[in-house]
Amino acid sequence: MGRVTVREKVLRIRGGTVGSRVDTLVVEEPLEIRLNGKALTVTMRTPGHDFDLAAGFLVSEGVISSAADIAAIRYCAGATADGSNTYNVLDVSLAPGVAVPDMTLERNFYTTSSCGLCGKASLEAVTTIAPWTVAEDPVRFDVATLAAMPDRLRDAQRVFDRTGGLHAAGLFTPEGELLAVREDVGRHNAVDKLVGWAVREDRLPLREHALMVSGRASFELAQKALMAGLPMLAAVSAPSSLAVDLAADSGLTLVGFLRGTSMNVYAGRHRITLEKASPTPMAAPG
Amino acid sequence: MGRVTVREKVLRIRGGTVGSRVDTLVVEEPLEIRLNGKALTVTMRTPGHDFDLAAGFLVSEGVISSAADIAAIRYCAGATADGSNTYNVLDVSLAPGVAVPDMTLERNFYTTSSCGLCGKASLEAVTTIAPWTVAEDPVRFDVATLAAMPDRLRDAQRVFDRTGGLHAAGLFTPEGELLAVREDVGRHNAVDKLVGWAVREDRLPLREHALMVSGRASFELAQKALMAGLPMLAAVSAPSSLAVDLAADSGLTLVGFLRGTSMNVYAGRHRITLEKASPTPMAAPG
Repeated sequence: MGRVTVREKVLRIRGGTVGSRVDTLVVEEPLEIRLNGKALTVTMRTPGHDFDLAAGFLVSEGVISSAADIAAIRYCAGATADGSNTYNVLDVSLAPGVAVPDMTLERNFYTTSSCGLCGKASLEAVTTIAPWTVAEDPVRFDVATLAAMPDRLRDAQRVFDRTGGLHAAGLFTPEGELLAVREDVGRHNAVDKLVGWAVREDRLPLREHALMVSGRASFELAQKALMAGLPMLAAVSAPSSLAVDLAADSGLTLVGFLRGTSMNVYAGRHRITLEKASPTPMAAPG
Repeated sequence: MGRVTVREKVLRIRGGTVGSRVDTLVVEEPLEIRLNGKALTVTMRTPGHDFDLAAGFLVSEGVISSAADIAAIRYCAGATADGSNTYNVLDVSLAPGVAVPDMTLERNFYTTSSCGLCGKASLEAVTTIAPWTVAEDPVRFDVATLAAMPDRLRDAQRVFDRTGGLHAAGLFTPEGELLAVREDVGRHNAVDKLVGWAVREDRLPLREHALMVSGRASFELAQKALMAGLPMLAAVSAPSSLAVDLAADSGLTLVGFLRGTSMNVYAGRHRITLEKASPTPMAAPG
C-alpha cells in the first residue's frame, strides 16, 4: 500500500555522454475489483486510494450513487495461496436492495442489436443510465477562476509527481477552491478515485463543481463526469469528437486546451461568465 | 470510414477576448470486434485502419501470430435495424485450426487463484502466452538513430494531426527508417493498429525493429511489444514501474524520455550502442 513511486537505477544518455542515475518511477500494479465476492474487473493502477477507485468505478458503471449504497469495502487477505495480502484485490459489498448489475461480457453490447454500434448509441446509453441530469444546473464559472485552475492542480500534483508519469484529476468549486485531487498512471483511474472520494463522502451529485483533468477529454471522461452529476469538465488538452457530442447532448460544459488565460469552450458556454462580479451568461446554451 | 477528424465551431477565449473559430477535433467512435461472429470487445477508437486494429488486438491477446491465422476480416453490414453499415462493427474469421480463446469475463482472472493478483503474476502471464522470446535478438540501435526517431515520428504524424488529440506509434528499422505509423485517440489502439499492419503483412516477429510511441510506456504497451516480438520499445515520456519490470524480465530494451539527444535506458542496455560505425554493446545486459 502507498507504493506510489519506486526508485530504480537507469542509464542516462545526454548528447553522447553516458551516466548512471537513480530515477523515480510511477508504480503500476493490477487491482482486481470484486462485487459481492464476484470478480468484476481488473485495472492497472497506481496503488493508493484504492477504495475510492473501486467506489468511483461503480459510480461510472451506474451501480451506486450514494455512500449508503456501499455496505463495506475491504482488501481480500485470503487471495493468495499463503494467505498473505497483496493489497491488489478488494471486494465491495453492496447494501441490501442495491441491484447487482449483469456483468456478463455481453453487457457492453446492448446497443448493437438495435441500431448498430455508433456514436449516437453510446450517447444514448449514458443518458439512459445516468441517475441525474446536469443541463439545468444554475452554477456558473468565470473565466479568471477557470484560468487559475491548471496551476492549482499542478501545484497540488507537484507534491506527488516526481515521475512525469501521473495523470491528475481535481475537483474545484466555482470559487476556484481545489477540494480534492487524485493521481494515477491511468487517467480514467484518476477520475474514478476522485468521484469515489466524493461518493464515499456522500457528495453526489456534484452539481456545484468542476472536474479538471491534466490530459485530454475523451468520451469516457465526459461519461464519468455526467455519472457523478458534474456540470463542468475542463481539460488541459484536446477533447474528442464524441466527448463534445456527449457534452452538447447532455448540457455538460466542456472546456479544452485550458492553459494560462486561454481556453476553448466546446459545449455548454452558458455556464461561463467573463466577469467575476456580475455572473451573467455569455450566450445561449450551445 | 476515414472520419479521422471533424470540424466544429468553438468559443475561443484568449485573456478576456472572446471569439468564435472552427476547431478540428479527433474523431472517437466505438468499434466492436467480433471473433468468428461472437462479440469479443468494444474499444473507443479513431476510425481508419480498423482491420489493422482488430488484427493487432488479436496479436496482443495471443490469439494470432501470422497472416495465415486470419481467414477474413469484414465489416458487418447487417448490424443495424435498417441494414445500413456503420463501419463500427467488424468480424474476424480465424483460419481453420486456430483456437478460439475462452473469452469469458473470467479469462482476466486466472492469475488470482494461484498467487493473488500481483505485478509478478502479470509478468508471468505475458511470458507464458508470448509465442516468442526477444532476449537473444542480436539487433542493436545506436544513440544517434534513436535520437532522430522522435522528429521522424512527429513529421509523419503532422500530416494527420491537426487536433492535438492523437497518439502515434511508429515502427523503425535499426537504420532509423520509419516503416509505418499509426495514430489513434487511444494509445493502445495506435500500437494495435501498427502491430496489426505488421501481422497482416506477415512480418511477425518484428525481431529487427523498434516500436516508438508518442506518450508514456505502460505495462500494456510493453506487453504489446513483446507479443509482436519487438526487442525495443522507446517512448517520449515516462515508463511505469511494471513496464520496466516486464522489460527487465523478458529482455526487452526500454527507453524513456527520448527527447532530442537525451534519453533514459531502463532495461536491455546491451542493445544500445554509442557509435554508428562500430556497433559494440555498451555494457552487460541490464
